Amino acid sequence: MNDPALVEPHLGSHAEHHLSSSAMLQDIVIGLSDGLTVPFALAAGLSGAVDSSALVITAGLAEIVAGSIAMGLGGYLAGRTEVEHYAAELAREHREVQELPHVERAEVDELLAEMGLSETTRAAAVAELTSDPEQWVRFMMKYELGLEEPDPRQAPKSAFTISTAYAVGGLIPLTAYFFTATPTEGLAWSAAITLVCLLVFGYFKSRMTGQPAVAGALKMAFVGALAASAAFGVARLITQ
Amino acid sequence: MNDPALVEPHLGSHAEHHLSSSAMLQDIVIGLSDGLTVPFALAAGLSGAVDSSALVITAGLAEIVAGSIAMGLGGYLAGRTEVEHYAAELAREHREVQELPHVERAEVDELLAEMGLSETTRAAAVAELTSDPEQWVRFMMKYELGLEEPDPRQAPKSAFTISTAYAVGGLIPLTAYFFTATPTEGLAWSAAITLVCLLVFGYFKSRMTGQPAVAGALKMAFVGALAASAAFGVARLITQ
Repeated sequence: MNDPALVEPHLGSHAEHHLSSSAMLQDIVIGLSDGLTVPFALAAGLSGAVDSSALVITAGLAEIVAGSIAMGLGGYLAGRTEVEHYAAELAREHREVQELPHVERAEVDELLAEMGLSETTRAAAVAELTSDPEQWVRFMMKYELGLEEPDPRQAPKSAFTISTAYAVGGLIPLTAYFFTATPTEGLAWSAAITLVCLLVFGYFKSRMTGQPAVAGALKMAFVGALAASAAFGVARLITQ
Repeated sequence: MNDPALVEPHLGSHAEHHLSSSAMLQDIVIGLSDGLTVPFALAAGLSGAVDSSALVITAGLAEIVAGSIAMGLGGYLAGRTEVEHYAAELAREHREVQELPHVERAEVDELLAEMGLSETTRAAAVAELTSDPEQWVRFMMKYELGLEEPDPRQAPKSAFTISTAYAVGGLIPLTAYFFTATPTEGLAWSAAITLVCLLVFGYFKSRMTGQPAVAGALKMAFVGALAASAAFGVARLITQ
């Protein structure tokens, strides 16, 4: 339920010139994408297998709680790991620059050669880049390892935003079952409401990332509809 | 349920020197992380609310189908979006290099200044990097935008691996309910089996990404236990 295309710009801050969306908006999108899809599909699946709306609601709420904790806490711990990973690599590069300067200097030269610089220009550039150890390490972190310093306050913020968005997204399809007499009736309303939300959400998500918006809206609705149909089919098959 | 710390090295191939895990292993980890957690927690939640193991299994299987389609298809579409995004940015950089060469040349100079190169070296480097339009565009893609060319065959492979891993992970906690008489008994076995799997999986996942392995094992089990307890509490609360 992760979305690499969305997670990527979030982490690789290089891309910020061409992307206008903030980290928080991206977290909302990550949470909503899954929240609108999985609890909806589970409720749809159960609607084909049980007679009680209360049961569909119970399972749906249990899923929302489980999913938002797994996503939120999982995201938080992953964010902390990223901060620790950066710190460990930073310490390692500092050590390498001190203990194996010739190896690290050769690596700088190699990176500059890959860019397309001539030997003469490289010689001057390597001398300048390695003149200050701090600058040297920063260069290695960014261009050899492709790592940007993560903000340690980002992890708890992201966790909270993602799990809230998941819960909000998940409650939308469930509300239909509160106001209808049977799961079948609930499913009809739930599907209608959720597909409209998926279309609208897919549209804005695609606009945000600069993708064709109508195609994005249809893709989002298609994933939700397919997941729900498959869950419905499987649950029906078992209980028959 | 995404795990940015795992998704990141997957996308930023710079990091490959310091990371030994392959893209496929990372996809397995992404799928298993969620598969072992969410269906387990949902089944645990329902065990506190219903009397029938068959119902727990039905809901669990519906969740696994819904989740693996949402993750797999969602991941596939995200991968395709990444390929399209790269192509669009590539076309845009080609256009900019042709139509606004002075602007793009200034951007190259700015990037080199950020690295720490002197004005003299920058002048030589800018002339060399912009002498060949292909090389110039490649430099802008990689160092201005931080984009690497994605492999178009990666998206369907990743989708298949992630959804299979999710389904495998999700079936583990469910098996307990097949062989026990009541949901309560099923839950006891399911929790025992799943927590052992989460510990083992967390251990190897952390080893793979170079993190402290015992702490990683405990974190993974903690997320699963918390998600399951919360789902159990909520489901029990509603049905009482």
